[in-house]
Amino acid sequence: MTYEDGKLKVVGTRPIRPDGVDKVTGRANFGADHSMPGMLWGRILRSPHAHARITGIDVSKAEALPGVKAVVTGADMAESSGSADAGESAINLRDLSRNVLAHDKVLYDGHAIAAIAATSDKIAREALKLIDVGYEVLPHVMDVDEAMKPDAPLLHDDMFTEGIEPTPETSSNIAKKMVIGFGDVDDGFAKADVIIERTLKTAPVHQGYIEPHACVATISEDGQAVVWCSSQGQFVIRDLCSQLLGMEAADVRVIPAEIGGGFGGKTTVYLEPVALMLSQKSSRPVKMTMTRGEVFRATGPTSASSMDVKIGATRDGRITAASAEFRFQAGAFPGSPVGAACMASFAPYDLENVSITGYDVVTNGPKVAAYRAPGAPQGAYAVETVVDELAEALNMDPVDFRALNGAREGTKAPYGATFKVVGNLECLEATKDHPHYKSNLGPDQGRGVASGFWFNIGGQSAATVAINPDGTVSVVEGNPDIGGSRASMAMMAAEVFGVAVEKVRPMIADTASIAHNDVTGGSRVTFATGMAVVQASEDAVEQLKKRAAKMWDVEVEDVVWQDGAAHTATKDAPLTLADIAAQAGRTGGPITGNASINARGAGPAFTTHICDVEVDRETGAVEILRYTAIQDAGKAIHPSFVEGQMQGGVAQGVGWALNEEYIYSTDGNMENPGFLDYRMPVASDLPMIDTVVIEVPNPSHPFGVRGVGEAPIVPPLAAVANAVYDAVGVRMTELPISPPRLLAAIDAYKAAAE
Amino acid sequence: MTYEDGKLKVVGTRPIRPDGVDKVTGRANFGADHSMPGMLWGRILRSPHAHARITGIDVSKAEALPGVKAVVTGADMAESSGSADAGESAINLRDLSRNVLAHDKVLYDGHAIAAIAATSDKIAREALKLIDVGYEVLPHVMDVDEAMKPDAPLLHDDMFTEGIEPTPETSSNIAKKMVIGFGDVDDGFAKADVIIERTLKTAPVHQGYIEPHACVATISEDGQAVVWCSSQGQFVIRDLCSQLLGMEAADVRVIPAEIGGGFGGKTTVYLEPVALMLSQKSSRPVKMTMTRGEVFRATGPTSASSMDVKIGATRDGRITAASAEFRFQAGAFPGSPVGAACMASFAPYDLENVSITGYDVVTNGPKVAAYRAPGAPQGAYAVETVVDELAEALNMDPVDFRALNGAREGTKAPYGATFKVVGNLECLEATKDHPHYKSNLGPDQGRGVASGFWFNIGGQSAATVAINPDGTVSVVEGNPDIGGSRASMAMMAAEVFGVAVEKVRPMIADTASIAHNDVTGGSRVTFATGMAVVQASEDAVEQLKKRAAKMWDVEVEDVVWQDGAAHTATKDAPLTLADIAAQAGRTGGPITGNASINARGAGPAFTTHICDVEVDRETGAVEILRYTAIQDAGKAIHPSFVEGQMQGGVAQGVGWALNEEYIYSTDGNMENPGFLDYRMPVASDLPMIDTVVIEVPNPSHPFGVRGVGEAPIVPPLAAVANAVYDAVGVRMTELPISPPRLLAAIDAYKAAAE
Repeated sequence: MTYEDGKLKVVGTRPIRPDGVDKVTGRANFGADHSMPGMLWGRILRSPHAHARITGIDVSKAEALPGVKAVVTGADMAESSGSADAGESAINLRDLSRNVLAHDKVLYDGHAIAAIAATSDKIAREALKLIDVGYEVLPHVMDVDEAMKPDAPLLHDDMFTEGIEPTPETSSNIAKKMVIGFGDVDDGFAKADVIIERTLKTAPVHQGYIEPHACVATISEDGQAVVWCSSQGQFVIRDLCSQLLGMEAADVRVIPAEIGGGFGGKTTVYLEPVALMLSQKSSRPVKMTMTRGEVFRATGPTSASSMDVKIGATRDGRITAASAEFRFQAGAFPGSPVGAACMASFAPYDLENVSITGYDVVTNGPKVAAYRAPGAPQGAYAVETVVDELAEALNMDPVDFRALNGAREGTKAPYGATFKVVGNLECLEATKDHPHYKSNLGPDQGRGVASGFWFNIGGQSAATVAINPDGTVSVVEGNPDIGGSRASMAMMAAEVFGVAVEKVRPMIADTASIAHNDVTGGSRVTFATGMAVVQASEDAVEQLKKRAAKMWDVEVEDVVWQDGAAHTATKDAPLTLADIAAQAGRTGGPITGNASINARGAGPAFTTHICDVEVDRETGAVEILRYTAIQDAGKAIHPSFVEGQMQGGVAQGVGWALNEEYIYSTDGNMENPGFLDYRMPVASDLPMIDTVVIEVPNPSHPFGVRGVGEAPIVPPLAAVANAVYDAVGVRMTELPISPPRLLAAIDAYKAAAE
Repeated sequence: MTYEDGKLKVVGTRPIRPDGVDKVTGRANFGADHSMPGMLWGRILRSPHAHARITGIDVSKAEALPGVKAVVTGADMAESSGSADAGESAINLRDLSRNVLAHDKVLYDGHAIAAIAATSDKIAREALKLIDVGYEVLPHVMDVDEAMKPDAPLLHDDMFTEGIEPTPETSSNIAKKMVIGFGDVDDGFAKADVIIERTLKTAPVHQGYIEPHACVATISEDGQAVVWCSSQGQFVIRDLCSQLLGMEAADVRVIPAEIGGGFGGKTTVYLEPVALMLSQKSSRPVKMTMTRGEVFRATGPTSASSMDVKIGATRDGRITAASAEFRFQAGAFPGSPVGAACMASFAPYDLENVSITGYDVVTNGPKVAAYRAPGAPQGAYAVETVVDELAEALNMDPVDFRALNGAREGTKAPYGATFKVVGNLECLEATKDHPHYKSNLGPDQGRGVASGFWFNIGGQSAATVAINPDGTVSVVEGNPDIGGSRASMAMMAAEVFGVAVEKVRPMIADTASIAHNDVTGGSRVTFATGMAVVQASEDAVEQLKKRAAKMWDVEVEDVVWQDGAAHTATKDAPLTLADIAAQAGRTGGPITGNASINARGAGPAFTTHICDVEVDRETGAVEILRYTAIQDAGKAIHPSFVEGQMQGGVAQGVGWALNEEYIYSTDGNMENPGFLDYRMPVASDLPMIDTVVIEVPNPSHPFGVRGVGEAPIVPPLAAVANAVYDAVGVRMTELPISPPRLLAAIDAYKAAAE
């Protein structure tokens, strides 16, 4: 079937979300909302040290406490090896096992050591205090540049940098080196009239989802387990749990709860395997939840970074060469998003000569997890700051400079792909034309722009649709609904069937009820799972046509499907979907449609942001005055959700730019593990964020969808920093631009000027 | 694909059931095991009268009781009309609505009148006492023959017997008359040398499932509802609730609990619509459970019956004519299984002349529900008793007499169908050859045999299979597992895939997760849902072959599937299912298979039972000494479950024959609504029941399955009665053969003989 943009009836409208009432009335079940009879409460003992060897663990006193039903330590875990496919990236199971429960060393403040299940949460917490752990405290390292030095404290004795030939013979904290690019950057820089080279740093920041990790797990004597938990993908939870614990995938049924935010941080396991181990030992269901402090100390923030970026251009504004070195802190185990940073950061530009080097470096912090466009915001902060400075040096409008050098159809991206139809120039043009960009600024106010890019991915998705006897339609899919996918899936199905969206009910199935689906991440769901839903719906339409043909006794080739009904030339009255559904039993049984795909052809997203700030020169406080995000969505299925994604990405990016950071004591203990001290933006910190949705359809998707969730967090770090520069003339090369840091920079600038 | 009986590797074996551990450890969740935060407790006020007009209901005092959150009565229900498709039979929605909550009249002791939801069960029970109901008590009628009389108390003012031409102008308690048959019975009886004609009666008996009805229902402000309940079909619960309450089917998600027995009695709704109404009024989840007394008083027993049977035969043992009149008590609303009684009772015989009349009659008892082979046990009791007497009169062995007149391939059944391959003669032959039949009897001991027939049905089923990345297989189906269907489905899938059954995990999905499935009933699941699972698995095998072809870069036509792996001539090593599963992401995405069918070609089941009894002439007590059930299963997928079905059917039939009955006071109140007074057989009442599984494959099913659940309850009533006759010479023409009744009959027999 083909869908013409102008003739769409449901796609592009803004119906009420099907999960809305349950969420506003508190009926929706999140990770901690499930309980079972006989359930125990699990708690985890965590390391007070940033780096220490465990010399012994004595759990006997804890086990003896009345009410304690099970105690587990790393010694109870099977030795894991190999890697698991987590959709976006491979997960090293040996590292994951050691992160879930430390085996011989603790590598960061908050690292899990042991877990207890007891008849009450109070007893479990009491029992934690009765576990004796012997530590040999070791020197630690937090800063990524420090960690790369040859004499830095070593986290792992057996880590020999990947990506260097020949492989080094001595261990280091550098897990991996990667180099990408093409052309001849030396030659390119030689041709440049102006070269800007800067070093910039960002702090670790947390995804900051509202809902802490939580699960209930139960495993029976024959090894069949059920896990209820909040995650970005029930299948990755199933696969990681089963592989860590040596179980078969089909023995672990994971039932997805609603998810109170994930942003990449809920694509791996922390509590679930531990809860299963405790359930196995106690033969009881076990509930585990994290406190906010545990979330901060022990679950993935994203990488701190240290970055060198160098760009050269001719006097007429053509970039001749670009190079960068990205050093990303991975936390305790390898796996920073430095690869994506290398690949994405220069992607908005049409470059002839580019060379990018990345380092994945372990440090004594929590193992980083994916965070919305992983790696791209840091890289864009560095690149877009240098681009801004270069445009200024060339005396060019920063949007014009970006458009002149902008990636477009046919551009070869630094990571090797050649762009097909993309909306980068359209975003820049809309930026230039936007009233915001033309508006005036007052004293101590400044404006910054920045571009952003995200790949978007496809991946594996399965969907089934079933026509109910009364003509309503059930759509079954396997991706947790984070950004409104229930609504989008129902809308795409309704469009295919030609019925009102209210007739379609979306359902997110557990791992035993539908085939594998990759995680809700990579901005893939509306694209890939949407494609599966469309194909499954089209499959069902074919069935409906066959049934209509049978009811009419005509050939199926003579039946067309239009406006929710079958039509044929020889009959005046069409057969509606409901008419055909009512007769399904008599015409062959239930009518269903199915699709399981590995979706290819995801369309890259480009975006440009405009940010106005006002700086309080006395306190260093930055107020966001106005913010406009312009983004190519390909096609906005439900524009409100697209706008919401854009606004949410901006809010998070602004927090990252201005205030968010992990603050450590000299002992390596996190000093701000709570929302009082870890300063995320709240409603009063932000203006209403304006959005402009550009639609340059992705030809690989039936409705043109690209994916929208990640791109909007990419530009804000640089847009804010560029705006601050515009306001007070200070280039902030380290995030966050917190009041003390900005005040110090303003003072230094004044002192230098005097 | 074709499956040769001798080459089957999984089908026919006896693996451990996948749901076993959860059931023996108490982990399995039955209807009452689900709870929700903020949940209310619902209770129902029931009529103390067998027949009364409701003159008024005042709920104000109940509503005022602190803790009461909602009160509903029949006046809160929408007026329903039309009929709903419940798989085996149509359900009249107007009657169902009035049965769920009486609208203007109560028609039986225990009829629901009003319901209350409160913060505790105690408050709900207290509040029931505060509801004032005004009654105008009316005369009532319980006995079916009494109810048919012109001057009987009328239950309904607007019931004009269906099936009589012209339609009567006056209302009666006879809801329907039906006549089937062929040939000329008068002519047939004229040719008979011996004619036996008897009138027999049976009492109402209850299905007696262990688990009382229970549910939790929640409905949100936007009308989306979830119901957890124990039933024989989540889809029929969904459809009846949505139709009774004027909702869309997709708005009611029914999650099937485990079911502690149904036997036909859980194919309709009692509590679920009421719980939904209470939830709607209170905006809270509502749990409702029945006491055993409520189950007896207000949920479907099966019909009491009054039956005339007449059979004539020639001296050489040929039946020349058969006729019958079956009068079945339907309870308060029409819908007794008299139709099936008419159709099934003579089906074991090859008849030339047959005429059967049936009457569906309302009485002041609970509306009957389906009970295992609905109608057939009563009919078989009458027919097989007369057949036994006829064989004796002809001085023939009763098995030889049955075999001589036995239905076989080509026989036209009384209901018009012509049998294809059936196993009736094979069962009779096995009976004759069985050591039990040849064994000796002692004093006061007797032996009876009886034949039984059940149609078995097909119907609508949907199944999906998904191959997990580690090569395990998820099978998703939509029928509650009553008789071991999880095991059978997994086995059939394992056979198709060629993998160990332990690699296959069956899953029973809720109504939002899979397409419509007819109820677990009619002995249809192993046949029809099994066929869907086989077809879905074969669909997945085709996918596996395609993926293998892609991995090998050969044509799919050159790939064969054997022993759980793809093979091709040009490659030495096969690709196992697990090999292909591991690469699914790279070869096109998740591998799934699907089927949704309306299964045709169900194979009828025939069975013959042998029963030995010993009668205590002083007390009238009957002891079952030995019992052997011989039944054609077509093919026993998991023989232990087939044997279990046969043993269970016998146990229930023996209870029906010997002790079970509804006892009413003269006011029409049930006097034995509990297991202390309603005497079901317990383990010590029965010997180990021997089983012989005959396998005459059903050519319409890939493995030959017929269906086994219902046939075994058909012969025991007659087999026991015939054995009692053989022991003490008394023909018991009224069930149950309880000690006082048998003692009276023996005494009368002695008195007559003296």
